Amino acid sequence: MSKKVVTMGELMLRLSTPGHKRFVQAESFDAVYGGAEANVAIALSNFGLDAYFVSKFPNNPIGDSALNSLRRFGVKTDYVARGGERLGIYFFEKGTSIRPSKVVYDRANSSMATADPEDFDFDEIFKDAEWFHFSGITPALGEKGIKISQKAVEAAKRHGVKISLDLNYRKQLWGIDEFERVMPGLLQDVDVCFGWLSSVEEKKDEYQVADFSKETVDLDRFKNIFGKMIEKFNIKYVVTTMRENFSASHNALSAVIYDGKEIYQSKRYDFTIEDRVGGGDAFAAGLIYGLATGKNYKEALEFGVASSALKHTIGGDANLVTVDEVMDVVNGNTSGSVKR
Amino acid sequence: MSKKVVTMGELMLRLSTPGHKRFVQAESFDAVYGGAEANVAIALSNFGLDAYFVSKFPNNPIGDSALNSLRRFGVKTDYVARGGERLGIYFFEKGTSIRPSKVVYDRANSSMATADPEDFDFDEIFKDAEWFHFSGITPALGEKGIKISQKAVEAAKRHGVKISLDLNYRKQLWGIDEFERVMPGLLQDVDVCFGWLSSVEEKKDEYQVADFSKETVDLDRFKNIFGKMIEKFNIKYVVTTMRENFSASHNALSAVIYDGKEIYQSKRYDFTIEDRVGGGDAFAAGLIYGLATGKNYKEALEFGVASSALKHTIGGDANLVTVDEVMDVVNGNTSGSVKR
Amino acid sequence: MSKKVVTMGELMLRLSTPGHKRFVQAESFDAVYGGAEANVAIALSNFGLDAYFVSKFPNNPIGDSALNSLRRFGVKTDYVARGGERLGIYFFEKGTSIRPSKVVYDRANSSMATADPEDFDFDEIFKDAEWFHFSGITPALGEKGIKISQKAVEAAKRHGVKISLDLNYRKQLWGIDEFERVMPGLLQDVDVCFGWLSSVEEKKDEYQVADFSKETVDLDRFKNIFGKMIEKFNIKYVVTTMRENFSASHNALSAVIYDGKEIYQSKRYDFTIEDRVGGGDAFAAGLIYGLATGKNYKEALEFGVASSALKHTIGGDANLVTVDEVMDVVNGNTSGSVKR
Amino acid sequence: MSKKVVTMGELMLRLSTPGHKRFVQAESFDAVYGGAEANVAIALSNFGLDAYFVSKFPNNPIGDSALNSLRRFGVKTDYVARGGERLGIYFFEKGTSIRPSKVVYDRANSSMATADPEDFDFDEIFKDAEWFHFSGITPALGEKGIKISQKAVEAAKRHGVKISLDLNYRKQLWGIDEFERVMPGLLQDVDVCFGWLSSVEEKKDEYQVADFSKETVDLDRFKNIFGKMIEKFNIKYVVTTMRENFSASHNALSAVIYDGKEIYQSKRYDFTIEDRVGGGDAFAAGLIYGLATGKNYKEALEFGVASSALKHTIGGDANLVTVDEVMDVVNGNTSGSVKR
Amino acid sequence: MSKKVVTMGELMLRLSTPGHKRFVQAESFDAVYGGAEANVAIALSNFGLDAYFVSKFPNNPIGDSALNSLRRFGVKTDYVARGGERLGIYFFEKGTSIRPSKVVYDRANSSMATADPEDFDFDEIFKDAEWFHFSGITPALGEKGIKISQKAVEAAKRHGVKISLDLNYRKQLWGIDEFERVMPGLLQDVDVCFGWLSSVEEKKDEYQVADFSKETVDLDRFKNIFGKMIEKFNIKYVVTTMRENFSASHNALSAVIYDGKEIYQSKRYDFTIEDRVGGGDAFAAGLIYGLATGKNYKEALEFGVASSALKHTIGGDANLVTVDEVMDVVNGNTSGSVKR
Amino acid sequence: MSKKVVTMGELMLRLSTPGHKRFVQAESFDAVYGGAEANVAIALSNFGLDAYFVSKFPNNPIGDSALNSLRRFGVKTDYVARGGERLGIYFFEKGTSIRPSKVVYDRANSSMATADPEDFDFDEIFKDAEWFHFSGITPALGEKGIKISQKAVEAAKRHGVKISLDLNYRKQLWGIDEFERVMPGLLQDVDVCFGWLSSVEEKKDEYQVADFSKETVDLDRFKNIFGKMIEKFNIKYVVTTMRENFSASHNALSAVIYDGKEIYQSKRYDFTIEDRVGGGDAFAAGLIYGLATGKNYKEALEFGVASSALKHTIGGDANLVTVDEVMDVVNGNTSGSVKR
Repeated sequence: MSKKVVTMGELMLRLSTPGHKRFVQAESFDAVYGGAEANVAIALSNFGLDAYFVSKFPNNPIGDSALNSLRRFGVKTDYVARGGERLGIYFFEKGTSIRPSKVVYDRANSSMATADPEDFDFDEIFKDAEWFHFSGITPALGEKGIKISQKAVEAAKRHGVKISLDLNYRKQLWGIDEFERVMPGLLQDVDVCFGWLSSVEEKKDEYQVADFSKETVDLDRFKNIFGKMIEKFNIKYVVTTMRENFSASHNALSAVIYDGKEIYQSKRYDFTIEDRVGGGDAFAAGLIYGLATGKNYKEALEFGVASSALKHTIGGDANLVTVDEVMDVVNGNTSGSVKR
Repeated sequence: MSKKVVTMGELMLRLSTPGHKRFVQAESFDAVYGGAEANVAIALSNFGLDAYFVSKFPNNPIGDSALNSLRRFGVKTDYVARGGERLGIYFFEKGTSIRPSKVVYDRANSSMATADPEDFDFDEIFKDAEWFHFSGITPALGEKGIKISQKAVEAAKRHGVKISLDLNYRKQLWGIDEFERVMPGLLQDVDVCFGWLSSVEEKKDEYQVADFSKETVDLDRFKNIFGKMIEKFNIKYVVTTMRENFSASHNALSAVIYDGKEIYQSKRYDFTIEDRVGGGDAFAAGLIYGLATGKNYKEALEFGVASSALKHTIGGDANLVTVDEVMDVVNGNTSGSVKR
Repeated sequence: MSKKVVTMGELMLRLSTPGHKRFVQAESFDAVYGGAEANVAIALSNFGLDAYFVSKFPNNPIGDSALNSLRRFGVKTDYVARGGERLGIYFFEKGTSIRPSKVVYDRANSSMATADPEDFDFDEIFKDAEWFHFSGITPALGEKGIKISQKAVEAAKRHGVKISLDLNYRKQLWGIDEFERVMPGLLQDVDVCFGWLSSVEEKKDEYQVADFSKETVDLDRFKNIFGKMIEKFNIKYVVTTMRENFSASHNALSAVIYDGKEIYQSKRYDFTIEDRVGGGDAFAAGLIYGLATGKNYKEALEFGVASSALKHTIGGDANLVTVDEVMDVVNGNTSGSVKR
Repeated sequence: MSKKVVTMGELMLRLSTPGHKRFVQAESFDAVYGGAEANVAIALSNFGLDAYFVSKFPNNPIGDSALNSLRRFGVKTDYVARGGERLGIYFFEKGTSIRPSKVVYDRANSSMATADPEDFDFDEIFKDAEWFHFSGITPALGEKGIKISQKAVEAAKRHGVKISLDLNYRKQLWGIDEFERVMPGLLQDVDVCFGWLSSVEEKKDEYQVADFSKETVDLDRFKNIFGKMIEKFNIKYVVTTMRENFSASHNALSAVIYDGKEIYQSKRYDFTIEDRVGGGDAFAAGLIYGLATGKNYKEALEFGVASSALKHTIGGDANLVTVDEVMDVVNGNTSGSVKR
Repeated sequence: MSKKVVTMGELMLRLSTPGHKRFVQAESFDAVYGGAEANVAIALSNFGLDAYFVSKFPNNPIGDSALNSLRRFGVKTDYVARGGERLGIYFFEKGTSIRPSKVVYDRANSSMATADPEDFDFDEIFKDAEWFHFSGITPALGEKGIKISQKAVEAAKRHGVKISLDLNYRKQLWGIDEFERVMPGLLQDVDVCFGWLSSVEEKKDEYQVADFSKETVDLDRFKNIFGKMIEKFNIKYVVTTMRENFSASHNALSAVIYDGKEIYQSKRYDFTIEDRVGGGDAFAAGLIYGLATGKNYKEALEFGVASSALKHTIGGDANLVTVDEVMDVVNGNTSGSVKR
Repeated sequence: MSKKVVTMGELMLRLSTPGHKRFVQAESFDAVYGGAEANVAIALSNFGLDAYFVSKFPNNPIGDSALNSLRRFGVKTDYVARGGERLGIYFFEKGTSIRPSKVVYDRANSSMATADPEDFDFDEIFKDAEWFHFSGITPALGEKGIKISQKAVEAAKRHGVKISLDLNYRKQLWGIDEFERVMPGLLQDVDVCFGWLSSVEEKKDEYQVADFSKETVDLDRFKNIFGKMIEKFNIKYVVTTMRENFSASHNALSAVIYDGKEIYQSKRYDFTIEDRVGGGDAFAAGLIYGLATGKNYKEALEFGVASSALKHTIGGDANLVTVDEVMDVVNGNTSGSVKR
């Protein structure tokens, strides 16, 4: 029997200009549906787990299409509530070389942002579940999002479900102060935390979770920061990716994990980029898959980073790869030779 | 020198599924920008007038693209305010044969819907203008839309500008009672009114402006209704189209106009449909062009109906035809022979 | 709780030239996955039933894509076996006007054609099921297909599941003699039969199930033929569609049903065609939906014919419509007016 | 051994807006290569004859692509000279319903228009040939085109090759007086003439060869006109199509032929239109095929009209159909039923 | 109030094969409209200046589309004359890696090449203008182009307008001797000159303006050459870009400017290429923008080079970027991080 | 007169996902026709030789399209037999960066795999021919393929035709033992052999012909291996490419040739990849062209490697380049500067 894993969050309609066209050049938009936690669910389903997504979609054909986009890749949508006004939208212009990608958000008043905790039967949702993943985006949606997140965490703990939380600070949605006020309440007893709070490390203008392109990797510093997170919130693993931004089309990626004792840094992958969106979610999904299926945390980290590196070669938000394909990269095959 | 004409209203991003695809089949959307009054402006610009559009767009690349979509066809955008949260969106699925087209609106909280009268300098706008066209959609956007409409009408009158108003009742936006309460205040001394109020004729479940597919044309009835409109609101011409819906791909169209003395019915055109959206706006633009350039009201009506019929053969919201092309249809050439 | 319905058959990759391009013009093919019984499953899922599809797909990415194409629209794929050599393919060129559509089959040696009865656990499959639909195509695939069909019918009866069978004679797959030899064994105690055997009516060169474009509808003749089918095989309802082929882009459709007592003919729909493939399957799905959800057989027939008529306006093999949309047509709304 | 047939003329790059887009909407053009006589060559090659095309293309990749477009469908290009400045271009906007198609020519100074008779070795070209087809377009290109046409006709006669000439008057290229002055010299002893000179029938504003949509077919009138042509120029058969233009998407077609004794009118086909361009050339090719392969002139005419009707269902300039497909239409199968 | 800047030149229809397809593979062409000076105008309009383009387009829908392509991005087209035979065309095949891009010109006899000085009212054009930019391409079009260039320069000087001239030698259009004979007459008192005449530096086989990929940058040599240009023609700034061609998809770019006293070299940008066409025009536009808005010449040069580098990441001829986006690059942000 | 060269093998329909889409993302497939030996034929035709392809295609429109794909580029198809069941298919997913390309074969029971030697008149085929090229794929198709290969080699020798053989071991088609058993019989007296048998060098798990990405080039080892091949089979030249796989989008290529006396290594090209398929065939074609037109074997090798490097920049299986374009690369121009 397959393992039941649950992710919860907002799913948005992503409207991308074709190729590398600028917004002002576009006569059409490619449409995919994505969101941090839904991306994790699709990746986990592709890895063979029984992935359920918890969200709310409007009761119209755009909501239907969002639902179909999950079912297509095997994600279970039994817990998707229907109703509300609209699906959030984000417009995406894919940069290249020295020109950055651009995102224009149009997500206010979405069905998920206006959902109530009563839209979800969390006891049913977490029955027999083994893992729950969510992110800082849901509480960022407003007071209702905070309540939904709290109810979900409580129910998950009640059912003995492991919890991972991607802090995912989004400055377009809320201020850093509000973020720092809310997240601690959700972090208690989380098993895996992606990123850290600025309260454990000096605050910056832009709260940075995972950009180390211009700093050298100082593992002791990570040990220190992550140690404080573990101490303060009783977290099992703290983890982050480190991205080197050579250009919009060329990045490198590595990651570190800390279990309270040993700090471990993964291999580093250097790659050109087909689509950067969802790279972090692919990492989260890989790490969760590893931990949920019995890999040790170092193996799980390697699986996560390889999974994320592969994601950058795939269009859309979701990581459409198999366990075998990720393991091939983990095992060092990045030569791109044709598979016949 | 060209004549200055002004239209005011909301411009939306229209996202259409390719061909006749259903929403749930779409992997991309064709993007055009349309709205009743912007469609009129583009058509008038194509007819050679100096068309200005008054609206408010968000200050982001989607707003830029909306602006470009007007400039491309020569519409002057000097009076488009920038700011607010978002551009309204509507999703469009083009039906065929017995399957109807479907519209999903996502227009709440748009920049135009939240605009203030102060965003527009109406005295500047109507300086030297000859015609002002607007519709019942702007007041339907809310209290601000009502105020903006009132200010515009007042300023237009102050500057001696001729005014046309397309009642355009949209049940998705407001109730019929609210409609009947607000519109009379905007109708006083209008020169051309498209449609009529239910207060002059028995109310129906769906307030019908222009669907006569299943009734015979009773010109006396029109004379009676239109006469009441003229009497009550001191309108110069009342006019409406009459559409026969054989199927989503096949319609016929005619129109009637009343000047208070004589009721006149236009020729009837039978055509297959490339894109039905904007058919009414193309009619309005044609009639306005005719009246603004000195045609008598019967010729103007014929020009309007031929313009509308041609619009149905053109994709997108806007009528991209020249005066010569419309006159060719008015003169009876609907054989579709290749023009070399 | 939703009703469990089961269909079984082959799913093929359909490769269509874009638009109306001829094969020799095509530089690309549109890819959808279709097959008579899978089309029925998708339609039933869209109507809100719990539709399961039974088949065998190869264990490669083409098989994965086939699976996804079903899951996307909610069809349950728990009973799809994986293995074998390949997915069957058919190439499709969509005709228009006086030019007919063309199909080139490349389906030999498919995973389903080479599947064994042991690939399917029919007792599990029919547990709690309410309806089983299959067609004459599966036995036409060869001896294994005949066995699989027999095992399925036996199990369905054992579990008290209602059975419908679309005779669907395909001359590319087997001879009429073989067809007449095999089908009677599968027809015993079927609840609904689409079409009839030539053994109850004079044999023709091409065994015709549903082409009445050039004959007047002689209801007495149908009563006679269908009555013999009922008598011989203890069938509950015999049914057929009648198609008028004006051209490749213009057809009309009606249907007749006989319950052993009264012959009933449905309304007739006249429509232009977006995609003809799957029109018969949409009819079957509609009728099954009607009967399975408690409509009487006349209502069910009307629902089936309206469902089929709508299908012709939709690209691809599958009927992507809701119950409300079908009922709208049943209730006479075929005017194609825009739904806002 | 296959029969060698030769056609000569200009081949142009046709740049069409996608679907029914207007020129001002196009962000891309579909590219095909077409021209009256090349269209005939491709059709004849598809019918199984050894078709050779005589022309001159520029020595650049656009010329290469033109060459490839012929070779792809089996046309022999041994006699295509290379050189000159450019390939002629025509822009094409496909109309629909009451909106006509539009052609914008940009063909001046093409390689063929500036070719010399010395570019072609007509004795080699007509060696073993059975048929030569050309049109009034080549002499319309200018003095060189007239010379090339004369040399070709002389050589063809010298080699005992049958000659057909499509008068094809193009008012964009020359005046009617010039046309009437030049063509008689090329018409002497032609075997088949498509159309007639205005000198045998009252001159019209637009010299009409084949538009009878608004006249009744008066066979006696044709007999009279065609008889004069035969008498004056010693032609064997005079022939013309008659087109009914219901709209840009809907036409009907018939044809008449006269052998000096009996006037014969073909069946009439009514069809919707995928692409009208090349309809006359498909007719010419069909008639030539019929006469060149031993059909009598009535059968040949029927083959020609059916061929032309089918062409209207195919995109591009060329008629991509087989003899069997044409015969199917000749035999009355225009129902558009799927061919499996 | 915005600054009025004027550019003059030819605008061509560019027909590009999709992606990196070779000409012989193309079944369609992407259509954009471009030309050195029009590219400058669009860029300047995007930078917020009031850019006017002076040219002549044919009075047909292709000319209309060309006009629209400028208006869309805010370029004023009041001074575009209409008439003549055709719009010039160039076919474009975008290379990649070691395969170079290919251009096939088809520009002879264009409306602009056959325009008369009388088509333009230069006193009206330069009224209130602050800058005039043109290039060596217009005089290369022939005697009329030379006259138009002279009249324009005279009028610009008369109105006290600053002038920039991009020498832009095109060997397809004229010989180097003719170039050297004509350009001096246009260079007198120009404010900014892009490139230099071979008369001030040894002549080469191919007159090179801006290819330094295989030479080291010898600033003293530039000082010497540019000094001679300044001395001879009383130019204020002489400037050139230096391009390193690693491959068709990978270049680096820098630039030098000389004010008669100090030679200054800009930063160097290394980038992959989306579309190389118009890179030089984007540089010119950036430099002009800088100088016209009060930047010093070094800042202006940096703005120009960053503008040009960004252009290489954008499809089409024109640089569709804002001042903020260019400044971001000037300020060192070339990491391509997503902008949210 | 042009030289007649003959290649023989299977031609397959290649169905590629658009861009870098994964199979599970594809809604359409780009269709080209390719196969090792057909790719060689097309390249040789583009180089100006008279290339004939020998194969068998099904007698349906897919077979017609395959035929057209060859004729389009000038390949002579006189010796293509028609009949059998189907054209082999392969599905292709183009990888990028660290994600490898994937091939799914569906080629069993193709017309060529089931062809008989009697389908081909080898004496006619090799009459006046100068070169015959085939590969190890044809014998890998089965006993009939072995027979056909033997008959072809015998006839070629009988007619004094030079023979080249690309060993091209395909583990999907047969085992290495079978390969080693069959190939020696075909290798006797071959003029050029691409690759070597494992019987002359230690056997590996995957029989490697041309992957040297992770070994240093040890020319002595090649001399030794190739020397044994020459000794054992009386071959004139043994040759192989050496590929460095940096990633799916970035490779480098070189080649070595041995004439029994001197081992020669070509230049090495480093390039990014548009389409890797057919890179080896482009090499073979280039080498054959060089040898067949009188270049010495070192020049021929350089021509072959440059030809192969260029192929990687071109979509599809075939190398669509001219001799001049290859020579440009041979002469060191890999800067990708625009060719005007």
